[in-house]
Amino acid sequence: MALIVQKYGGTSVGSIERIEAVAERVAKHHAAGDQLIVVVSAMSGETNRLLGLAGEISETPDLRELDMLVSTGEQVSMALLAMALHKRGIGAISLKGSQVAIKTDSFHSKARIKDIDATRLHAELAESKVVIVAGFQGVDERGETTTLGRGGSDTSAVALAAAVKAAECQIYTDVDGVYTTDPRVVDGAKRLDSITFEEMLEMASMGSKVLHLRSVEFAGKYGIPLRVLSSFKDGPGTLISVDNEENLMEAPTIAGIAFNRDEAKLTIVGVPDTPGIAYQILGPIGEANIEVDVILQNVGDEGKTDFTFTVSRNDLTRAEEILETHITQLGAMEWRSDSKIAKVSVVGVGMRSHAGVAATMFRALSEVGVNIQMISTSEIKISVIIEEKFLELAVRALHSVFGLDADEAGDPES
Amino acid sequence: MALIVQKYGGTSVGSIERIEAVAERVAKHHAAGDQLIVVVSAMSGETNRLLGLAGEISETPDLRELDMLVSTGEQVSMALLAMALHKRGIGAISLKGSQVAIKTDSFHSKARIKDIDATRLHAELAESKVVIVAGFQGVDERGETTTLGRGGSDTSAVALAAAVKAAECQIYTDVDGVYTTDPRVVDGAKRLDSITFEEMLEMASMGSKVLHLRSVEFAGKYGIPLRVLSSFKDGPGTLISVDNEENLMEAPTIAGIAFNRDEAKLTIVGVPDTPGIAYQILGPIGEANIEVDVILQNVGDEGKTDFTFTVSRNDLTRAEEILETHITQLGAMEWRSDSKIAKVSVVGVGMRSHAGVAATMFRALSEVGVNIQMISTSEIKISVIIEEKFLELAVRALHSVFGLDADEAGDPES
Repeated sequence: MALIVQKYGGTSVGSIERIEAVAERVAKHHAAGDQLIVVVSAMSGETNRLLGLAGEISETPDLRELDMLVSTGEQVSMALLAMALHKRGIGAISLKGSQVAIKTDSFHSKARIKDIDATRLHAELAESKVVIVAGFQGVDERGETTTLGRGGSDTSAVALAAAVKAAECQIYTDVDGVYTTDPRVVDGAKRLDSITFEEMLEMASMGSKVLHLRSVEFAGKYGIPLRVLSSFKDGPGTLISVDNEENLMEAPTIAGIAFNRDEAKLTIVGVPDTPGIAYQILGPIGEANIEVDVILQNVGDEGKTDFTFTVSRNDLTRAEEILETHITQLGAMEWRSDSKIAKVSVVGVGMRSHAGVAATMFRALSEVGVNIQMISTSEIKISVIIEEKFLELAVRALHSVFGLDADEAGDPES
Repeated sequence: MALIVQKYGGTSVGSIERIEAVAERVAKHHAAGDQLIVVVSAMSGETNRLLGLAGEISETPDLRELDMLVSTGEQVSMALLAMALHKRGIGAISLKGSQVAIKTDSFHSKARIKDIDATRLHAELAESKVVIVAGFQGVDERGETTTLGRGGSDTSAVALAAAVKAAECQIYTDVDGVYTTDPRVVDGAKRLDSITFEEMLEMASMGSKVLHLRSVEFAGKYGIPLRVLSSFKDGPGTLISVDNEENLMEAPTIAGIAFNRDEAKLTIVGVPDTPGIAYQILGPIGEANIEVDVILQNVGDEGKTDFTFTVSRNDLTRAEEILETHITQLGAMEWRSDSKIAKVSVVGVGMRSHAGVAATMFRALSEVGVNIQMISTSEIKISVIIEEKFLELAVRALHSVFGLDADEAGDPES
């Protein structure tokens, strides 16, 4: 008998039929003797419907009232799920964020959980009830309803799992796990049985489609085993867990190949190579709340250097405007931009103890004729910026060279 | 400057356009310096949509979860109204039943209000805010969301008006007031400027289409002036107030003509005329939760009597079954039923001090050839049971004879 937190997203509770399917799944776990806390999102489409109503009234609705409005979505799906469980003869009770209580700060629409009172949860579980909790919402110290922002239901589930010391937090979604790379790009992409929190965070470009990153950070921080599963078909899913030695022994060198098309590059040509020049360039960019990803400074001739950095594509225009304003005071000759680039990364905790990952990566890209424009590394990730048109070619080459293709075994680097 | 409670029903907030219209009306009152508490129902159709979802899962959903589900309806409309007021530069805040707090007992789906804490209401009003409150819902002492049952938003409004000692409780609906009779039956039916609580209760057959009767009783009990108005067009509406001497002086003898088609008659022929016979007949009927309206016992020959009573038409079959079971032990000869009857009532507090109302009523019906089958009287009402086919004829004759037709003045009996 284990205490498990399950979270079902919008598509998983998107219709009465789907809610009945969730009830079936919960009933099986309940019959197996598990204690269950079930976190639900709003039925798919409902949050957008509510935001649409608000949008008809105001482009800038008051955030407190917006929370009052959208928090109804989860309340509807949790009550319906409770009814579907009752019909199966299972004791179940739905609780709003305020009833749990999930205590947050007062930043409406993007509140952060401060504390969860587990008293009522334990009391209901002790009566053999399945406890259904509204995801995405909480209550501040004045009793105001708050929401955690989009994707917040994942965070609710992890926070609840931490509060009750659950054995596992299971996130049911419309994919059956985390893959070595995007199956739409590589046919042979495989579901991973397990992945570490750090790898999951670095795999952001794929991971964010599966799990809200804040919830992964949160689970990592509190050491809550997190499992991504499909609510549409049975299967073990992917377990995301702490990076302990036992895991490391078993882990392949490379967990997966991540990529991101949402990159644009800005280059300032002929900047004086003086101390503080990076700050002079990136300071105004940061002040405009534009996140910079990869940075490269080429050593040039005669005290001049080329400075290149990447930003998200939809920040490009604003970044260009800022450079245009500052270019003369930087003493630079010119600047140029390129939005036809992409980032490809190999991710794996194994590279900490395995040498030669970078060499293998660069050789593989070279063999298929892909030129590397920029390189960025961390302890468990190597990223390269390449021309966007080579993206699929590069991902497939790397997926293959690191032995990730389905029906292949082994690791050429080990 | 007055403190006013306004209540807007489902059709009044049935679309974004309608919510904007309500915001306009509230803005006018606010600009005039009134302090406002606005109670809203769910957008029309929303409660039925939610009940439909529950119905797809279970025919007998748990009432606690049903309250959790349907209470979201008001939460949506109140948040949208707050946004519409903000857009007009008016400070406004929406409050759930639990946030006010509107404290109820724990009978889910038909909870009764026990107490309202006016502290927060006064605090928000003191900040010049319009306070929008979810109608129909409350919270029990364990923090569970409860609902007051259908039509409960009227009750919420009256209870709030009593709690804050409001000058008036205004119920906005889709009719512009209470009429002397149903305008669909009598072209000349007039809107009443005022009516007493007692008259309103006796006018139930028409009044119940306008106002939930429980709210009228409640308003009468606490002496809250209640006004029925249209949210679609401007006008003074109908003021429902206490029956004081000043009102009585001005009141016409008869306020209106009420009628009810939902009547069926049962007659037991040849019952022994012994003490307790009425109880022997009506006891089993009452135990089956069937409400009996008019009762008539004819004095017959040789210790035998005919006993007649009326019930709602949809209770007729069950009442017949009960009579069939008991007929022999009653020592009666036979029983018969008739569902082609109707009840017509003249209502008015004035009849307390004006003689001859009954005589005028019976004469008027006689003149148009309507036979009276049964008669029932109270201090401020005389009801007759007639053949259903004469209903319109009787209502028109009475509306005319008591001087209620539009463009007629005076009272022939005074």
